[in-house]
Amino acid sequence: MATLIRHGRLVTASDDIPADLRLEGGRVVAIAPSLPPGPGDEVHDATGLLVLPGAVDVHTHLEMVTPRMATIDTFESGTRAAAFGGTTTVIDYCTPARGQGLLAALADWHRLAERSCIDVAAHMCLLDADSATLQQMPALVRDEGVSSFKLFMAYPGSLMVDDGALLHALRTAAGLDALTCVHAENGPAIQALIEDALADGRLAPKFHAATRPAELEGEAVHRAICLAGLAGAPLYVVHLSTAQALAAVREARGRGQRVMAETCPQYLFLTDREYARPGFEGAKFVMSPPLREAGHPETLWRGLADGSLQAVATDHCSFCYEVPAQGMRYSKQQGVADFTRIPNGAPGVETRLALMHEGAVVRHGFSLQRWVEITATAPARLFGLYPRKGTLAVGSDADVVLFDPAERWTIRAAEHHSLADYSLFEGIELTGRVKKVFVRGQCIVDGQQWRGRAGQGQFVKRGPSGHA
Amino acid sequence: MATLIRHGRLVTASDDIPADLRLEGGRVVAIAPSLPPGPGDEVHDATGLLVLPGAVDVHTHLEMVTPRMATIDTFESGTRAAAFGGTTTVIDYCTPARGQGLLAALADWHRLAERSCIDVAAHMCLLDADSATLQQMPALVRDEGVSSFKLFMAYPGSLMVDDGALLHALRTAAGLDALTCVHAENGPAIQALIEDALADGRLAPKFHAATRPAELEGEAVHRAICLAGLAGAPLYVVHLSTAQALAAVREARGRGQRVMAETCPQYLFLTDREYARPGFEGAKFVMSPPLREAGHPETLWRGLADGSLQAVATDHCSFCYEVPAQGMRYSKQQGVADFTRIPNGAPGVETRLALMHEGAVVRHGFSLQRWVEITATAPARLFGLYPRKGTLAVGSDADVVLFDPAERWTIRAAEHHSLADYSLFEGIELTGRVKKVFVRGQCIVDGQQWRGRAGQGQFVKRGPSGHA
Amino acid sequence: MATLIRHGRLVTASDDIPADLRLEGGRVVAIAPSLPPGPGDEVHDATGLLVLPGAVDVHTHLEMVTPRMATIDTFESGTRAAAFGGTTTVIDYCTPARGQGLLAALADWHRLAERSCIDVAAHMCLLDADSATLQQMPALVRDEGVSSFKLFMAYPGSLMVDDGALLHALRTAAGLDALTCVHAENGPAIQALIEDALADGRLAPKFHAATRPAELEGEAVHRAICLAGLAGAPLYVVHLSTAQALAAVREARGRGQRVMAETCPQYLFLTDREYARPGFEGAKFVMSPPLREAGHPETLWRGLADGSLQAVATDHCSFCYEVPAQGMRYSKQQGVADFTRIPNGAPGVETRLALMHEGAVVRHGFSLQRWVEITATAPARLFGLYPRKGTLAVGSDADVVLFDPAERWTIRAAEHHSLADYSLFEGIELTGRVKKVFVRGQCIVDGQQWRGRAGQGQFVKRGPSGHA
Amino acid sequence: MATLIRHGRLVTASDDIPADLRLEGGRVVAIAPSLPPGPGDEVHDATGLLVLPGAVDVHTHLEMVTPRMATIDTFESGTRAAAFGGTTTVIDYCTPARGQGLLAALADWHRLAERSCIDVAAHMCLLDADSATLQQMPALVRDEGVSSFKLFMAYPGSLMVDDGALLHALRTAAGLDALTCVHAENGPAIQALIEDALADGRLAPKFHAATRPAELEGEAVHRAICLAGLAGAPLYVVHLSTAQALAAVREARGRGQRVMAETCPQYLFLTDREYARPGFEGAKFVMSPPLREAGHPETLWRGLADGSLQAVATDHCSFCYEVPAQGMRYSKQQGVADFTRIPNGAPGVETRLALMHEGAVVRHGFSLQRWVEITATAPARLFGLYPRKGTLAVGSDADVVLFDPAERWTIRAAEHHSLADYSLFEGIELTGRVKKVFVRGQCIVDGQQWRGRAGQGQFVKRGPSGHA
Repeated sequence: MATLIRHGRLVTASDDIPADLRLEGGRVVAIAPSLPPGPGDEVHDATGLLVLPGAVDVHTHLEMVTPRMATIDTFESGTRAAAFGGTTTVIDYCTPARGQGLLAALADWHRLAERSCIDVAAHMCLLDADSATLQQMPALVRDEGVSSFKLFMAYPGSLMVDDGALLHALRTAAGLDALTCVHAENGPAIQALIEDALADGRLAPKFHAATRPAELEGEAVHRAICLAGLAGAPLYVVHLSTAQALAAVREARGRGQRVMAETCPQYLFLTDREYARPGFEGAKFVMSPPLREAGHPETLWRGLADGSLQAVATDHCSFCYEVPAQGMRYSKQQGVADFTRIPNGAPGVETRLALMHEGAVVRHGFSLQRWVEITATAPARLFGLYPRKGTLAVGSDADVVLFDPAERWTIRAAEHHSLADYSLFEGIELTGRVKKVFVRGQCIVDGQQWRGRAGQGQFVKRGPSGHA
Repeated sequence: MATLIRHGRLVTASDDIPADLRLEGGRVVAIAPSLPPGPGDEVHDATGLLVLPGAVDVHTHLEMVTPRMATIDTFESGTRAAAFGGTTTVIDYCTPARGQGLLAALADWHRLAERSCIDVAAHMCLLDADSATLQQMPALVRDEGVSSFKLFMAYPGSLMVDDGALLHALRTAAGLDALTCVHAENGPAIQALIEDALADGRLAPKFHAATRPAELEGEAVHRAICLAGLAGAPLYVVHLSTAQALAAVREARGRGQRVMAETCPQYLFLTDREYARPGFEGAKFVMSPPLREAGHPETLWRGLADGSLQAVATDHCSFCYEVPAQGMRYSKQQGVADFTRIPNGAPGVETRLALMHEGAVVRHGFSLQRWVEITATAPARLFGLYPRKGTLAVGSDADVVLFDPAERWTIRAAEHHSLADYSLFEGIELTGRVKKVFVRGQCIVDGQQWRGRAGQGQFVKRGPSGHA
Repeated sequence: MATLIRHGRLVTASDDIPADLRLEGGRVVAIAPSLPPGPGDEVHDATGLLVLPGAVDVHTHLEMVTPRMATIDTFESGTRAAAFGGTTTVIDYCTPARGQGLLAALADWHRLAERSCIDVAAHMCLLDADSATLQQMPALVRDEGVSSFKLFMAYPGSLMVDDGALLHALRTAAGLDALTCVHAENGPAIQALIEDALADGRLAPKFHAATRPAELEGEAVHRAICLAGLAGAPLYVVHLSTAQALAAVREARGRGQRVMAETCPQYLFLTDREYARPGFEGAKFVMSPPLREAGHPETLWRGLADGSLQAVATDHCSFCYEVPAQGMRYSKQQGVADFTRIPNGAPGVETRLALMHEGAVVRHGFSLQRWVEITATAPARLFGLYPRKGTLAVGSDADVVLFDPAERWTIRAAEHHSLADYSLFEGIELTGRVKKVFVRGQCIVDGQQWRGRAGQGQFVKRGPSGHA
Repeated sequence: MATLIRHGRLVTASDDIPADLRLEGGRVVAIAPSLPPGPGDEVHDATGLLVLPGAVDVHTHLEMVTPRMATIDTFESGTRAAAFGGTTTVIDYCTPARGQGLLAALADWHRLAERSCIDVAAHMCLLDADSATLQQMPALVRDEGVSSFKLFMAYPGSLMVDDGALLHALRTAAGLDALTCVHAENGPAIQALIEDALADGRLAPKFHAATRPAELEGEAVHRAICLAGLAGAPLYVVHLSTAQALAAVREARGRGQRVMAETCPQYLFLTDREYARPGFEGAKFVMSPPLREAGHPETLWRGLADGSLQAVATDHCSFCYEVPAQGMRYSKQQGVADFTRIPNGAPGVETRLALMHEGAVVRHGFSLQRWVEITATAPARLFGLYPRKGTLAVGSDADVVLFDPAERWTIRAAEHHSLADYSLFEGIELTGRVKKVFVRGQCIVDGQQWRGRAGQGQFVKRGPSGHA
């Protein structure tokens, strides 16, 4: 018994054609101009709709628990929200506790991730790159399907590694055909600016942004590229948010260095004027990197247009603004007297595909194919999920999104599916909306109706990084 | 009755999957993991082969006749050679005689192009951009399917237009959603260098290259980009050959300007040391732009890798090196005493796809998808042939190439199908070879056997330029 | 009998010290902390004043007469105005009539220049670079002391040469140790924009600027640099006005190419908002290049600061705004119905030194030495006047300016000495003013009093171009 | 009683004229074409010689003693060597011991510096930028005449500060009109490379260079510029040695940031092929930064030519190659089994002026004035010694060098005056040689004869940094 999607307009990273799809056994099994339904087939009429590969979000922090805080979205709630937004696979960051082995950390992560509603994979964060750590990397890549590692150039004293450790990690990862991701901000310089701010009594949310200037992201990206070049290693820059950083990436790519970068909808749609909101509202936008001055977003759009940026992810790391009535007590309010205590991050996993349709296709004239490429295909390729994920070709996983390119709607936190009580994009009007979502052939979202269930998501072992 | 291609590995600009294809009515009608043949179906076994969209060559000069010379390849011979090389569509440059109307020139071109063996389309060259010329452009775009125009910044006194004309043409073309192509070399400066060379008695073929330095291509590309920016027009740079020109293109794209460029296999595989060949042999490589110093080719490969270059075409413009025993008397020998009299151009239409497999995939590690993109998909999109041409999706024209990625062979003019008596790439060893070629479902090349016929090619009206 | 300047602060391009100067026989003959006057010595007390080398203006058009127009300032009036502004030497552009030989043109120029009040030298404009013209160049350099040539990339049909001619002229000049100056704007593209404007009825003065966009200067400077590089010739860009052009110059200098450039006070102090003045007032600012958008001036100041720009000249080319009551009938009013008929140019020879003190020293923090360098020393060196001109060292010509760095005043055309009836800088308040001026030891300006006379200026034969 | 220097050719940063000088009371008191000697005057005939301001070397490490090593040259021997090379002032780096206060460190330095033969000044190194350290800075600038500070981005665990400390130091120094100097190499990344080398048994001197790649200097310079920009502080990069670093400096200067840089003769004349010398000879060239690949030197010459580099200093930090027969036992031989134990540094204080004449004037066509500027005037200005030092103007200190621009000679350690037993430049033939040297009017070097004495040098309190 199969599922048929009929009369739609199939859009992949390279094609845009009228076609019917047959889904069977969790895979796409036929593509043709017209596929007649057989007895018992489940048929979905996609007339007027785009038929897309399920989107892939390669940057989430679900159910991240640390001694100081915990995100509000669990794997269950976060992946359900993702599904409503057309995302059928996430790659989530597994962060070891200080001193914890990588395999132990991954085991902890698996226990939580079991309740996912869509397919999930894991990146591994490295808090150090001493020989004990480096020796654990092969097992992750070869046995566990974790073929990417992340290091932090920010957060001295907690997550940050020094440049020597980064160099060692890059080289080791490259030897394993694994991809190294960096959070690129200059931690010690930011720390100095924060100390100055605290000493001066500059404590409001806007000083979060003021103490993380654009130049210090540009600097760190430039540095990471230099180290990756010395290591002969590919590099992936997460949540790139500034013109300076983009320029460094573009320059390196032009020299032939294998550097890739993602940006996020918040850096494409919003600017630092959000921090000027009255009262403590600016805290909603406290994330790292922070929102940037006007000018950066248009530059980032150009980076997506000319291929210097390859992927758009969300960095979904959700907290409530108000203290939740029950359950977890962590919220943005923790930092009401001191911006350094505001939980750092924001929700976004649900709105990426529609925001990018609006921004890329409607406003900036990108082709539909390029939209699919940056939200699904390139992320899947770069992180070794392709061709199972990221495309709709015969043999691929039957992760499908039906998307109405004409429906107009407005983002409202009141209607979203994250447990967070606000949206960064509240009130933004969009053209284009997800209508149905299938994971491995099963329809889990049907309009506003949830037809999926926790635990049906599978862990996907990833292969080596491919070309974007 | 259909044609089935079974057990192959389907490669498009985005996908790389095992799949069977069904071709019927000149189109691709089904793609599935396994398609059982029906009675009467023609079945081709593609086991071990890549199944590719027919390649698209957007830069040829077939049967180009001027008062001073004529190319050796007719539409018949040239398109047959193209077919043997896996190219199933060419866009050929129609060049009006001085004073001739554009529509009249196109009519002449059509008369010659009728004997094509594969599908053909036309670009129109503009020798001027006065108001009479500009007024003829809409009819070409809207009625004749000629949606691109070419202007020359080289060849003062014959083909060259001045910067004012170029600006006017760019603006008019942009208003018609047509794409403007430029041959970008600084004609007057080259003319001055040629005059100096002739005055000094520097007459050998190598002085063709010496009088067309790389800087003067870089300069002209920079200038064309400036003019296109002022006109608000997209720009397509043909046969880009230098690091300087590439840098100008990359910089413009980074600023968000819509600039595209093609390069050619000769600029990727060869350098100016060919001009040091003994005797008059260097004349074989007399073309404009000339082959460049070492260093440029590797830079161009990086441009293809980072997306700054979108397409690879051939600039096939063939002459014999020796005077043919019969028929046409034009040959490279015309210029034995004076390099300025050497017919300017070289053959290449047959070897592009295999050369690019060797260069891009084997030597430079490009993905198969990127190889298809630069040789078929992007050219088709940029020049309004997509999705009929340039991809293999259901509904596309059934232009298919079966390619053996493992076969090793050597380029020999003695075995090629152009009427030219030499190859630029003589003796180069390649891995990967075209095995079968289909145009709109009909197999016209089967190994070394020709199964096509003159006149079966169709003229393709093109639509507006799309994204690469 | 000598002249003593006592108790001043001597400022040269490298020094800034308290010192007395003795002038004798037209030269500086002693510099010492204290020089006691002898009997009969003329003594000037410079207490509180800067003692500067006379400023050198290397870009003027005095008494320029063409069939269509004539400038209002003669050599007499123009050099008197220059003297009041602290300029003691001008290099004026000699422009041959079409078809006139260079030596004949120079002879005509000499007849007019005889009535100069300060020292003068000549550049020669080349309207062509055919062999007849090139053959006249050595005599100018070797016999006539004219060691610089200017070519125009603008004004097609009148002054413009093509790139081949420019290349030939650059090479010939380089062989003579002469410096090639270019007016760098893309003439044919501007012509196309002008044609469009006229066809559309866009006739007001502001369309002069609109049809000469910044990009077309940047383009032409880039092109001239390319040609100079091929010719192995030094290049001097006159009246550079845009960020784009500056970037091209800086990039070339960084590559080691010998490229120099001047800018003018108008491009440093004014922007294109002057063209928005009511009525026909914008015509006062019609010059080529035109005033530029905001942003360019600050960029040019940075170019002066980092040494990418070496000189500030005036491009003094004066016309009256109103029709003069008597004498010459040429005025800006000629173009009241058509911006292309507005006489192209503006006065400025008198205000350069004080404007640059205000702009460079007061507002931008340049050292006094750098101010002297860009207004006197570097121009003198670049054009072969050094060490006679451009410095105050023993043995140099005793061209001296006493400058009060503290006096505040306001530029008023009503008080200036040009015959023009307006100033570009009307109403600008300055700190710093010329108090006395000496040419070869003779005081010709004393406060507002004129003590010089027409004809006392001498023609200075120039040597080869030196380092800035 | 005065000293007269007659018949010479006076060269300063701006002038080049025949002139006599009178020196009296330690100052220059008259400059004139001809100064007749009075009774008792000491007269020096400078016929055929250049008369230059004494050169200023702003980067030395004399009598530097640490627990692990001590340089061979004392203040006495080092300044005598400097004098023989035409250097009349050095600014030496005072390096506190770990935990030592800045004033205490300066007092120690003064005790050693008392035996100097020429004038001396001090920079202060900062090993930290905590509040205790920052609070000591004003006293140094205001009371002690120490108006520059140096921080290290290299040598983690000993001299290196982190980026937060650097940011704080830059800001504090800027508030004091003091200049911040950086040793810019990425210490942690170098440390990682060193660890790898040691682990692999790569122990020979050449691995000193291999573990300090050019990219890591470029990176650190880029980073320092970023931090200085955030701090609003001027920045001075010491011993810049790479094309990458120069590009970063040039780019920043073009943006208007106040960034200056010095290079050293060794980076202009030598390349890393010295490390391929047989046996342990490469150890002579072990310094940080190391000598670089071919290509970097020519790029640095271009940086001096276009003003991107302002000064040439020596980084004189001398050790013997062989173990001295008596006295100090430190020598390059310490590292014969392990390159990390080779004392890091090399002699050079004596050969700078003549090497730069050969390199800049003779080989690269710089003007004599530019040669004086980069070796004397600009260093003096940047570090607050001007106009006492760095020029020859009336009132300046009478530090004078008589230089024969035509004498040919060869650098030989056997003939130099440093206590080091080798020269980096052994065997290099030069045109141009120091003949006589005066410090404050007293002739201390006369040909090969030493007429000075230890202790006659004075400490010079410096003022704020001026423009180069």
